[in-house]
Parts: sequence; C-alpha cells; structure tokens
Amino acid sequence: MERKKTVLTGIKPTGTPHLGNLMGAIRPALEMAKKPELDPYFFIADYHALTTVQDGKTFRNLVHEVAATWIACGLDPARCTIYCQSDIPEIFELSWILSCVTPKGLMNRAHAYKAVVQENQEKGQEDLDAGVSMGLFCYPVLMAADILMFNSDFVPVGKDQVQHVEITRDIAQRFNKDFKKVFKLPMHVLSEQSAVLPGLDGRKMSKSYDNTIPIFAPSNQLQKLIARVKTDSVGPTDPKNPETSTLFMIYKEISTPEEIEAMKQKYVAGISWGDAKQQTFEKLDQFLAEPRKKYQELMANPAQIEQILKEGGLRARKVATALLAEVRKAVGKI
Amino acid sequence: MERKKTVLTGIKPTGTPHLGNLMGAIRPALEMAKKPELDPYFFIADYHALTTVQDGKTFRNLVHEVAATWIACGLDPARCTIYCQSDIPEIFELSWILSCVTPKGLMNRAHAYKAVVQENQEKGQEDLDAGVSMGLFCYPVLMAADILMFNSDFVPVGKDQVQHVEITRDIAQRFNKDFKKVFKLPMHVLSEQSAVLPGLDGRKMSKSYDNTIPIFAPSNQLQKLIARVKTDSVGPTDPKNPETSTLFMIYKEISTPEEIEAMKQKYVAGISWGDAKQQTFEKLDQFLAEPRKKYQELMANPAQIEQILKEGGLRARKVATALLAEVRKAVGKI
Repeated sequence: MERKKTVLTGIKPTGTPHLGNLMGAIRPALEMAKKPELDPYFFIADYHALTTVQDGKTFRNLVHEVAATWIACGLDPARCTIYCQSDIPEIFELSWILSCVTPKGLMNRAHAYKAVVQENQEKGQEDLDAGVSMGLFCYPVLMAADILMFNSDFVPVGKDQVQHVEITRDIAQRFNKDFKKVFKLPMHVLSEQSAVLPGLDGRKMSKSYDNTIPIFAPSNQLQKLIARVKTDSVGPTDPKNPETSTLFMIYKEISTPEEIEAMKQKYVAGISWGDAKQQTFEKLDQFLAEPRKKYQELMANPAQIEQILKEGGLRARKVATALLAEVRKAVGKI
Repeated sequence: MERKKTVLTGIKPTGTPHLGNLMGAIRPALEMAKKPELDPYFFIADYHALTTVQDGKTFRNLVHEVAATWIACGLDPARCTIYCQSDIPEIFELSWILSCVTPKGLMNRAHAYKAVVQENQEKGQEDLDAGVSMGLFCYPVLMAADILMFNSDFVPVGKDQVQHVEITRDIAQRFNKDFKKVFKLPMHVLSEQSAVLPGLDGRKMSKSYDNTIPIFAPSNQLQKLIARVKTDSVGPTDPKNPETSTLFMIYKEISTPEEIEAMKQKYVAGISWGDAKQQTFEKLDQFLAEPRKKYQELMANPAQIEQILKEGGLRARKVATALLAEVRKAVGKI
C-alpha cells in the first residue's frame, strides 16, 4: 500500500474570519483534506503572531478563535492533525539548523521583508530596516522548518505565499547536498481561487475595505448586514440581472445547483431587492447556523479546544521527533 | 542564604587547543569557576559550529575534543555544569521568541557580520552579503538565548565578545518591557588578560601565525617545539635578559615564584640557550603530563565524554525548562 501524501496547511491567527475567508481559503482546504489519498496537517502559526501580538490574553484568544473557526467549519480532528506550531519544539531546533545552510541573500529577497523596506523608502526613512524585527526577517526559515518537519508533499498557498515554498525547497536542497538527503522537496498547490466573493459594497470582501460578513455573526446582525448589500436601482418588479448582483453571488456560493437555478429565475421574473435580500439572508442564516452553534460551543469551552490541539500536537510530535533524529544524525549529533 | 550567582562561559569548538588558549582563556575561566559564591555553567556552542562544519564526523570530534580539553585542564563536572547547546532544545524555542522582539538593525551592526560585509566590500564584491549564512547573521540572537536561558549573572568574554553581551541585554530589556519582567540582565566580565603568551617565533601565540604549542602534544613533539623557540644571539655563557626571552615567558607561566626567581638567576648568570630550552621543556612536560594523560584517556573513551555531557545537559535542562515555562506564560502560551 502506498503511503498517503502529506498536505500541510498553515493558518495565521488573525481576528474574526469572514465569509470571504470561508469560501476562498477554509472551504477549499477542507475539501482537499477529505481526499482519501491525503494525510492532512493543519497548523496554527502562533509563534509567528508574536511578531505583532504582545499581549498574552490576545495571543491565547487568537489561537482559540482560529482553531474553533476551522473545527466549526468542518475540520475533523479525528481525521486531520491540527496543532500549534508552539507545541512542536523540534520546529525551532530545526529552524536553527536550517538557518546555517540558508544564505542571507535568500531572505533579503523575500516579499514580506522587501515590502517593508519599500514602504520605508517611500516614507523617506533613513533606516530602511525601521520596524523590521528579526522575527519578520527570519520568518521564511521558520516556515521552511514548519514545512520540512512533516515531510510535506503539498502545501496549499495563495499566490503571495508561493515564494515561501520555493525558499523552502532551496533550503532543503542545500541541506540535502551539504549533509545528507533527508528532506523531501515540497510542492506548492495554488488554491483554485473560485470567483472572489464580493463584499457588502461589491468590491472583494476584505477586512481592509470594511465590507465583510463575519462567519459567526448572530442572525440579527447577519440580517442587518445583508440589508446593506449594494444593489442597483432597477424597479421592484422589473427583471434583474443575477450575473451582476452581489447578493446573487453570495447566494450562489451557499446553494445547490437547483436552488441557484430557481433563484436565477426569480431574478429574471423580477423579484424585489427586499425579497431577494430576505431570501438570501434566510439561506445564509441556515447555512451558517450549524458552524455558528459549534463555534459558540467551542469558544465557551476553551479547555476542549486546548485538548484538541494538545492531542494534535502529540500526534504531530511523533513525526517531528523522528525527522529531527534523522537531521541530528546527518549533522553529526547522535 | 543568598543564591549563588551564575557565571556562564561559552566554548566554541575549534580544533586543537594550544598553550595560549590554556593560559588566556581556559585557566582564567576555571579559576573563576572555583569561587565558592559562583555557580559555573560551561556550554559547548556546537550548533554554532554548523555554520562552518558540514561533516558529521568532524562535528562530533570537535565536540569531544573541546569537552576533553576542558575536563583534562581541570574542569570538574561534579562542580560545574558542562553541556552542549544542542542538548537544550529550549534554547532554540527561546531564540525564536527573542527574535520577535529583536530589531533587525541590532544584527546589522553586529561585529562578526560587519566584518564579512567589509571584507566583501574590499574585495569589490557586488553582493555584500556573499558568503553570509542566516546562521552567521542571526547568531547574536541565539547567543542571547544561550545566556538568558540560565539566568546568567556574569558572562566572561574577550574584548571582541563584549558586544554580544550588550546585545543580549538590549533584547532582554525589550522582552521585559513588551511582555513581562522575566529576564535578568547579564553582565560581561572581561577576562583579565595576563600578558599575552608568545609563540615559537616571539609573536602572540596564535593558530594564524602557525607558532603554537599544542597542549596535548606528546613529549618528543613538545621537545622539538621548544627547541624551535626563537632566541637571541647572546653567547652560550654570557648573561641573558629573561624579560625579553620568549622561553622565559613560557617558563614563567607554569612555575612557582621560587622556581621563576631561580631561573631568572640562571639567565643572569649565563645559562646556555640549549640548557634553558631543556629545562623549560622538562618543566612544561611535567606541567602538561597530567592533563595530557587525562585527555588521552577521555578521547580513548568517547562514551565517557558523552555521559558527562549528557548529565550536564540534564542538569541544565531543569533550569531551562523552568525559565521557558515563565517565558511561555508571559507571551500567552500556557
């Protein structure tokens, strides 16, 4: 029997998730995780967050939120290994070892770092490294350790993260050449971006546009948000174009082909925007009811979240300790 | 009863030690370790060596050599904690956490890194970071973790290492301010450089001058080396000046005040260089006999070295795990 391929998804803990995150990132990753030929790993990059979060309570809460979100949205901890980066000390030792075979030039060219330097340049800052911590600068090495630690075959990423996987391959190749062929070279998998979900104002749903629909908003808030979705000025009983309607695009994402077809007909027949909003809200509310309930249950019981992460961590550490032993042997540390 | 103060000495594993190392670094550190009010820690910075050593056997051998050297020269593993950096995984986790509060600018200004950049500049290299690994660039952060991990009060260093302790204090203060006052601020202790020991040619004894006397050279090699020590052309029975004689300086380092005085008289009375060499050799051979024997015994029994390092590592880890727990709590990781 062939060994299952490992697919590793990194999750950066960042505040309240919205419908755009669910459709664009969470759902595709969970779909992929269901493939029987894959062994899915999900890790919360909590120690990455330390570059920005300096408050213990906020830190803990971010981790709980993100774990509860993914589990509420369908991640099955019995089938997937979900864990916190900070629970796998082997990652940090590996990260140091990898840093010894990583040319600094590779980090100089990393996007996230270069973006800050450019910003400093544009602001006329004399010190181009102003505001850059070593955590930010070294992060691609830690990410390489995150990935290589688990013999990852596939790493699903957005476009902006492809470079990280390439850097990881570079570092792995260098180690394999300098010491011994220990690391498998991972491949990135670009998430097939289904059409980007529009936000309340019709632009891409994004926190920076303040146009998001939080996944776990209570019904009454959800209804108010849907009421705010931008529509055109076509009269109440006139035929409407579903293809250009933000409301319809949201509906489409959460409905069956039959429901979509039926709603399309209603648009063409001239449903009022008020009715369309009500029906979209009802559909969305129903779609999110189960995850919302699950999320609230989990957040009310942080010990349960901690337990799930702890178990995932123990599972992940088995793989990590075995690989680190190989690495240590390769460098001469018995 | 007041808690003993911790004094932490880092040892970089680098090839065969010579008499200059013994007098300038090993002996002063071991003297300091004997003070009853101090709790001495010695660590071998083996994972630091990975930036230059890419061969497992060489790596292991370097570690054994350096541990055997210090123990043969008088380090008492029952009274001192001696361990390998690589046996304390907590150091690497701490190093990552510290990197998140370390401004990159601090590393840009570190001596070792700047020296390579300058060398590249002088060579007309276009890429000023050519040959710089992330291990080299980030080493001051790892060194901060090495030091802070054990609540070090004092860190004996040579002049070129003072900056590292200052960087460590900067990082510790930053963490204490951003999160919680967890770290004690260490102080550097400049080793009182006794007069620099001259080498065979009269210049400072140094590997780069190829003028060294290895500590553990066998008697016959030692005799040949002493025969090579540069002397002046004063006639065999003429009075000689001990103060300008390399031979006398070596003799002085290994003899009692009475022996020194007696030898001084012989110089003034006109001892021949041949006799002076013979007497210096005999004294040195006697002085090094015990350490040499101990060193050979240890190197013939690597399992014993490993055992000593293992026990030291276990003792050190107790301190490390307790401190890391405090750090984790401070950042919000329970």
